[in-house]
Amino acid sequence: MTQPSVSVAPHLLLGSCDYPEHVPQERWARYAKHQRDAGLHFVRIAEFAWSRIEPQPGRYDWSWLDHAVEQYHAAGLKVVLCTLTATPPAWLIRAHPEILPHDEQGRVREFGSRRHYDFASPVYREHSRRVTLAMALRYGRHPAVAGWQTDNEFGCHATSRSYGGASAAAFPEWLRRKYSVVERLNEAWGNVFWSMEYAAFDQIRPPILTVTELNPSHVLDYARFCSGLIAEFQREQVEILREMSPGRFITHNFMIFESGFDHYEVAWGLDFASWDSYPLGMLEFFAPPDTDDEVKTRYARTGHPDLIALNHDLYRSLAAGGAGLGREGKGTPSGMWIMEQQCGQVNWAPYNPLPADGAVQLWTAQAWAHGADVVSYFRWRAATMAQEVMHSGLLRHDETEDRGLAEVRALDQTQFPTGPVRTRVAVLHDYESLWLYDQQRHSATLTYWGQLAAYHGALRSLGVDVDIVHADADLSSYAVVVAPAVTLMSDIRSARWTQATERGTRLVCGPRTAFRMPGGQTWPEGQPGPLSGLLGVKLLQFDSLRPTLGQDVTGPGGPFRAGGWAESYRLDGAEATHVYAGGPLHGQPAVATHGNATVIGAHSPELIRTVLAGVLRAADVPVTFLPDGVRLSRRAGQTLVQNWTADPVQWQGRTLAPVSFEVLDGE
Amino acid sequence: MTQPSVSVAPHLLLGSCDYPEHVPQERWARYAKHQRDAGLHFVRIAEFAWSRIEPQPGRYDWSWLDHAVEQYHAAGLKVVLCTLTATPPAWLIRAHPEILPHDEQGRVREFGSRRHYDFASPVYREHSRRVTLAMALRYGRHPAVAGWQTDNEFGCHATSRSYGGASAAAFPEWLRRKYSVVERLNEAWGNVFWSMEYAAFDQIRPPILTVTELNPSHVLDYARFCSGLIAEFQREQVEILREMSPGRFITHNFMIFESGFDHYEVAWGLDFASWDSYPLGMLEFFAPPDTDDEVKTRYARTGHPDLIALNHDLYRSLAAGGAGLGREGKGTPSGMWIMEQQCGQVNWAPYNPLPADGAVQLWTAQAWAHGADVVSYFRWRAATMAQEVMHSGLLRHDETEDRGLAEVRALDQTQFPTGPVRTRVAVLHDYESLWLYDQQRHSATLTYWGQLAAYHGALRSLGVDVDIVHADADLSSYAVVVAPAVTLMSDIRSARWTQATERGTRLVCGPRTAFRMPGGQTWPEGQPGPLSGLLGVKLLQFDSLRPTLGQDVTGPGGPFRAGGWAESYRLDGAEATHVYAGGPLHGQPAVATHGNATVIGAHSPELIRTVLAGVLRAADVPVTFLPDGVRLSRRAGQTLVQNWTADPVQWQGRTLAPVSFEVLDGE
Amino acid sequence: MTQPSVSVAPHLLLGSCDYPEHVPQERWARYAKHQRDAGLHFVRIAEFAWSRIEPQPGRYDWSWLDHAVEQYHAAGLKVVLCTLTATPPAWLIRAHPEILPHDEQGRVREFGSRRHYDFASPVYREHSRRVTLAMALRYGRHPAVAGWQTDNEFGCHATSRSYGGASAAAFPEWLRRKYSVVERLNEAWGNVFWSMEYAAFDQIRPPILTVTELNPSHVLDYARFCSGLIAEFQREQVEILREMSPGRFITHNFMIFESGFDHYEVAWGLDFASWDSYPLGMLEFFAPPDTDDEVKTRYARTGHPDLIALNHDLYRSLAAGGAGLGREGKGTPSGMWIMEQQCGQVNWAPYNPLPADGAVQLWTAQAWAHGADVVSYFRWRAATMAQEVMHSGLLRHDETEDRGLAEVRALDQTQFPTGPVRTRVAVLHDYESLWLYDQQRHSATLTYWGQLAAYHGALRSLGVDVDIVHADADLSSYAVVVAPAVTLMSDIRSARWTQATERGTRLVCGPRTAFRMPGGQTWPEGQPGPLSGLLGVKLLQFDSLRPTLGQDVTGPGGPFRAGGWAESYRLDGAEATHVYAGGPLHGQPAVATHGNATVIGAHSPELIRTVLAGVLRAADVPVTFLPDGVRLSRRAGQTLVQNWTADPVQWQGRTLAPVSFEVLDGE
Repeated sequence: MTQPSVSVAPHLLLGSCDYPEHVPQERWARYAKHQRDAGLHFVRIAEFAWSRIEPQPGRYDWSWLDHAVEQYHAAGLKVVLCTLTATPPAWLIRAHPEILPHDEQGRVREFGSRRHYDFASPVYREHSRRVTLAMALRYGRHPAVAGWQTDNEFGCHATSRSYGGASAAAFPEWLRRKYSVVERLNEAWGNVFWSMEYAAFDQIRPPILTVTELNPSHVLDYARFCSGLIAEFQREQVEILREMSPGRFITHNFMIFESGFDHYEVAWGLDFASWDSYPLGMLEFFAPPDTDDEVKTRYARTGHPDLIALNHDLYRSLAAGGAGLGREGKGTPSGMWIMEQQCGQVNWAPYNPLPADGAVQLWTAQAWAHGADVVSYFRWRAATMAQEVMHSGLLRHDETEDRGLAEVRALDQTQFPTGPVRTRVAVLHDYESLWLYDQQRHSATLTYWGQLAAYHGALRSLGVDVDIVHADADLSSYAVVVAPAVTLMSDIRSARWTQATERGTRLVCGPRTAFRMPGGQTWPEGQPGPLSGLLGVKLLQFDSLRPTLGQDVTGPGGPFRAGGWAESYRLDGAEATHVYAGGPLHGQPAVATHGNATVIGAHSPELIRTVLAGVLRAADVPVTFLPDGVRLSRRAGQTLVQNWTADPVQWQGRTLAPVSFEVLDGE
Repeated sequence: MTQPSVSVAPHLLLGSCDYPEHVPQERWARYAKHQRDAGLHFVRIAEFAWSRIEPQPGRYDWSWLDHAVEQYHAAGLKVVLCTLTATPPAWLIRAHPEILPHDEQGRVREFGSRRHYDFASPVYREHSRRVTLAMALRYGRHPAVAGWQTDNEFGCHATSRSYGGASAAAFPEWLRRKYSVVERLNEAWGNVFWSMEYAAFDQIRPPILTVTELNPSHVLDYARFCSGLIAEFQREQVEILREMSPGRFITHNFMIFESGFDHYEVAWGLDFASWDSYPLGMLEFFAPPDTDDEVKTRYARTGHPDLIALNHDLYRSLAAGGAGLGREGKGTPSGMWIMEQQCGQVNWAPYNPLPADGAVQLWTAQAWAHGADVVSYFRWRAATMAQEVMHSGLLRHDETEDRGLAEVRALDQTQFPTGPVRTRVAVLHDYESLWLYDQQRHSATLTYWGQLAAYHGALRSLGVDVDIVHADADLSSYAVVVAPAVTLMSDIRSARWTQATERGTRLVCGPRTAFRMPGGQTWPEGQPGPLSGLLGVKLLQFDSLRPTLGQDVTGPGGPFRAGGWAESYRLDGAEATHVYAGGPLHGQPAVATHGNATVIGAHSPELIRTVLAGVLRAADVPVTFLPDGVRLSRRAGQTLVQNWTADPVQWQGRTLAPVSFEVLDGE
Repeated sequence: MTQPSVSVAPHLLLGSCDYPEHVPQERWARYAKHQRDAGLHFVRIAEFAWSRIEPQPGRYDWSWLDHAVEQYHAAGLKVVLCTLTATPPAWLIRAHPEILPHDEQGRVREFGSRRHYDFASPVYREHSRRVTLAMALRYGRHPAVAGWQTDNEFGCHATSRSYGGASAAAFPEWLRRKYSVVERLNEAWGNVFWSMEYAAFDQIRPPILTVTELNPSHVLDYARFCSGLIAEFQREQVEILREMSPGRFITHNFMIFESGFDHYEVAWGLDFASWDSYPLGMLEFFAPPDTDDEVKTRYARTGHPDLIALNHDLYRSLAAGGAGLGREGKGTPSGMWIMEQQCGQVNWAPYNPLPADGAVQLWTAQAWAHGADVVSYFRWRAATMAQEVMHSGLLRHDETEDRGLAEVRALDQTQFPTGPVRTRVAVLHDYESLWLYDQQRHSATLTYWGQLAAYHGALRSLGVDVDIVHADADLSSYAVVVAPAVTLMSDIRSARWTQATERGTRLVCGPRTAFRMPGGQTWPEGQPGPLSGLLGVKLLQFDSLRPTLGQDVTGPGGPFRAGGWAESYRLDGAEATHVYAGGPLHGQPAVATHGNATVIGAHSPELIRTVLAGVLRAADVPVTFLPDGVRLSRRAGQTLVQNWTADPVQWQGRTLAPVSFEVLDGE
């Protein structure tokens, strides 16, 4: 696969999402020219245009899109085209209502917004291929077309899984292929537990509407099944695009903290991953549930730097370092894009404040420093119709330039050279662990993402750049690897980790690591199962703490106060560095080290930061204790110093203006 | 239409709601006499009596109702009869289950309480006409019958709209009549937005169960459609009553803050509007979501004076000044009734406290001062059965007189002369604006009613009497007109407002005014669309603020602190009187004036009060800064001074006792 | 019925719940021996084993269970076997999907967890009898089998009532048998209220999905109907077990604060009641909604002593003193069991903390002191599969002994002699009152259980032992009887209470006592209906107070502050001891006494405690004002002194260690 020239641009490029079909045709040339004049290089179009391209079954109307593409081309813009499948038109849905998905209540999800399809529907698959082929044939070799986006935001609005219809019909066959005989499934799921054993595959339904909680193994397999459907759905489109549109990249715009499918599996086969970055909506709506209201207020106008960075660090290495476990994803110029970048208020969170002055520039700079080669703002002009009229654009409804565009114009793009993000520190991530963790999280407020964010945020607060890579990735180039919440452990994963530590990598694990076998059960020999040898401990107790209940921890750098979760260990070779004080865990190890491996059982941001700082120093990774809201990110020989607070900050002899950044030479 | 003699009674009259069918027949004469002795003139009956009047299909049993009416008549009471349609009996529902409505989850709403019908059901329409005719024939000319109430509390329990069945079936045809061709509908709704374009009207369903948020234009048209069904349903009854019951008034008892239909459309054709006033339940259950818990506690035993007054001011001019835009509704003796007035604890709010001593008198006096000619207490005797046994009456379960009746007896009704409420200040209101505002309110807590209540309450706190009139009403007699949240703007509406200001009326607009075109889209040329010239501004920014996030405003009377919402303007002829300080809106206009027009972009009760006071003074409307809980209302040459607090208040040389009023000569 | 020898064991015995089918067969002998070595005498098995016992229709596999029973037997353990009906297997459900129950939304509740059946299903009834007979034939006379548990946790997960299918089909016939003619039903339900009168029984449906609130009489009869189904379902099993397994006890393990059925009705015919005690989950999940967050935190690691005791006191006399009203249930060695006793963290509450050190011992001791003859820990080994992997056991996942087992081992069982709990104080309880109270509770936070817990807890804080008995039980042996919330009053109940007070028993009633007639309506002659004479009062007012609104009360021991509820009385022979001060109830009686009867209208824990202390002293019941967290319980000549706090407490010259108990000679 040849990358398009964009990927070797010497510096960050910008773009926007535009919807020519929303405005009269006479404006298109003006819009395109305006975009180019504002310093934009790319335009993404057509992801919701199916009803205009094919207004009636099989009757394509290409004329308007031909014209739109020509205007962008004439203005010197490169076009990112989308496959049309996020919004099947009414004529298709009414002719084939079985395309509609079912929600977790078992209800049909109706036509009238978007993403109203079941990935398993054979009818829809056929139309997906047909309309993708038509698009690819028409525009696949057009000189203006730089690349493709498949569909739009897989999983958005809880659409990863349909709980009835075509998906329900296909699930038993998927299980049969996986387990061959139903007894093996019963064994793997532990169905003996509540007499849930099946006598035949076709007795098995999607995991909804049970009398009480679900079997997590049932949920886990359904999540895998649905994730596979999405991957397959996309692969059919990718195959068509590869053939019909040679030399163009293919990407997908993933979502903030999306949990509904295995992104490594779905990203496989793409050239790079994109994601849609809405920092303010993210904080109001997607932040982990243990996020303080005070934090939400303090960062209401910038978003939280570490939550944004977490998504950057995840998606940067996603396609490159994904499910192909042997591939080397780390440190290469991945070509991550921000396909949709917030540039004013959004419309979908409980509250939708304006960004602070400087926030759009800061977001853009941060995206670059974390690996983005292109930042494309959503959207060119604010929509005047339908669901998103309260959402901003670079242009206002009245086509005047909005605050965000002023900031974009003022950016010097050349100060953001492309090149690799290089770091010796990785955080391990795994969607199957996420599914298991959140299915039985044992706490109303602590989630997988919350736990991962605590560790990632601690590293960021120490001035460290972080790769987020798959739990089965090659770890050989990392000095320090952190596994905050990898609760699913296989023998092979355990062996990889052990091998890495033997080669000198230092490993830090969070609580619940290796709590589960690959099928979702726990280790009959106790936790952390095959990782016991490496960590030198056995799990002793775990304690789920209500928000008003804390647990003291003593040890170097302490005392600390754990909240949310506390687990303790029986030492089996390891040494305890921190122990619990008071309460039912009194005197038991809270943190234990064993050679290059450390496990932290107490959920306490300060403790995590302290332990990580020690491990990083031991691994010769430079550590800087940063004040709240100040962050460092490095790329291509540059260091981006960021102030995310509303006040000037004195830091290492500099005064950082509120909501601002500086690019310094050197990493 | 000749009004019945009641409307020219020289002073306020009282009544109660009674249910003879709930008690043994031998008590009826006693109850009627008791009512008359207690000073009541009216009794409302029979709104839930269908199963007794027609126990089997077509077999009417009039005997008991004949007897009941005779007893009231003999005691000198006037009877308000109701059409029976709020509670279709079981035999009808089981024979025609298609009468049952569907809820927003798509489920059939079952028989077993009340309001279980779909306004669009042809079968139910037929039965509605049939049973109304039967009632009208039987009692239409009875000398005791003063008038009619149609049905009961349209919209209560979210029954304005059925989302399936008959309504779903009728919607496409309604759309076809409105748009003729589906392309016009697609254009009006902006369906191109997410490829939501329909190829035929019959592809369109009620707006429920979509994957994510709904198209507001889809919602708006469904609301209009359903509102029209209610109007049509009632009109069929009104036509029968007009013919068969000459000389009797027809009214409907509307609900507190009911939003489900266009009350101007439904009130059209009635003689006057009634409403059901439950001040304590209103505060606990219906108060706008941004109401402080502290306020809810402080007024727990009286209700909030301004929320009650808002409903009075709305319903006073509803039928008279309603959808018939040219009619003169303001300042005439409208004959507004309180058909159901709380007189003890209610049973339907989360908490149901007792009213304070004096509250029933205060509510009655306030209702009079805001235009009520009759106050009818709910209910005569507390129910001993079924859903409302925890609800109070004028009599207790044991038929002893309850606290409320003692207060009613002690009232001197002659101190409340009827006559017009005259004011030179109007607040503009519009249900289509409400639907659009609340469908995309952009804030979890700020609603249309909340915004309207903030402006209306500010006027009330300045000692000003207020008409609430339709946004398209004749404004010529008003010195000051306030449009708190009229977000839907048509060219004709804009022209009317402009004309009014040209003739000297001063106009004050709240944020989001004229944000939308009549179809629900925003103005492609920017907000406030056609009102830009009048206001001399263009909308620059809008900022949805979480409760913990404020925005400072400076200017005369300031500083102020906006919360919930802040929008700013580009001046285009107007002058800024207040500007934002700090934050992303720093230095931008928060309040702007242009000739006789003013727009307030910042949501701050103190700022609103300050700006309104200035405008009122400029218009020579007297302004009195009232302390919290003290209110003035004027009618028929009298001024009602009210103390709504639990403490005595010193005010202008008087001591106002807790929860009390005085009637002073002069307005 | 001959009780098995267990019931005459001289002291408390212990057991555990084990699941041999969850682990390889080779471990069974080891587990059994381990249990015996740890001091356990009983093992409960097989309640979820249907799919293993009958893997295919009619093909039983007894071999594994035979072997398991043999291992327990060989180790000297006694086995409690369960009927299998809590978890019908997949083959049965897929063959007869009509077995599945319907939820309150009308949806089918799916296979995949447990309790997925409708008690009214004729098909399921047949299978229930068939499989129970098979079990009884196989093991009914096995020497190791001590007794039987029917099904498992009736009502858990809101399964007491199915709202569709078989239950819906059977309800009309049940009504016809009860009322004979539909007019009597209409009368009893007050269906005239909203024209809800039925013309035929088959028009009546389960009480769900109505437009607004339900008729409480409809709800009440549906609750009675469903309760009767459960009783009938169990009775069919009991009859089979009695015949086929002579000399063995039969019990059922009831739930914490379960409200879905009449436990007196369902317990009838059992030898004794068992219940499943999870003190920490109880406090987090089942505590009444007016429980303070501070209390939840303070007792997070022990549970609240009085909530646990309430369940003990209820279930101790349940089977013996149940629906057979003339039976003498009080003070006899009832043989109550704790069938499942928490011994580590649970997995089903929002937060699941570890028990404090000593808590398992304290729970065991308390259970004994409140009448338990056997405490059986849940579960032997923590589950490694499916829904409950986060739940603890006596053994960890890795089969090492967990903290709980260490505490169990350290217990000296001989210090807990069996014998009667004797007390002269009873609290009256009635499920029909509960249903009515909670159906129209008039307050978002005050519930039947909350009100009962307030009175029971006040008694416990005074050092008094309490029987909780049915409201129609024989009261002759009690000096003081407290009726916290018996809102349903019949003439016969009233007569019984009156008779008891005439014989010298002192009666204390809480608010809402006798508010309702047996059909759910209120007394047309006012409240408290037939109890007016005994109490010497008539109800005057009731006041539902939001949490931020209080009501002062003055009188001996005061002042007090009522919250949640305040009701006042007209004295009709009684004397007021406490009156309201301020507010709408100012000067009205809050507490009134009349001979041996007292009624407390104000909900104030301190007032309740004060009044109860006075009544107890007057009845010569010793009263000790205990500090918070210190409790006394007496059984068989011993007194258990308990400290439930995390700190040492000085009390009567002793130092009570944190979370500890002492057994003192003498009651």
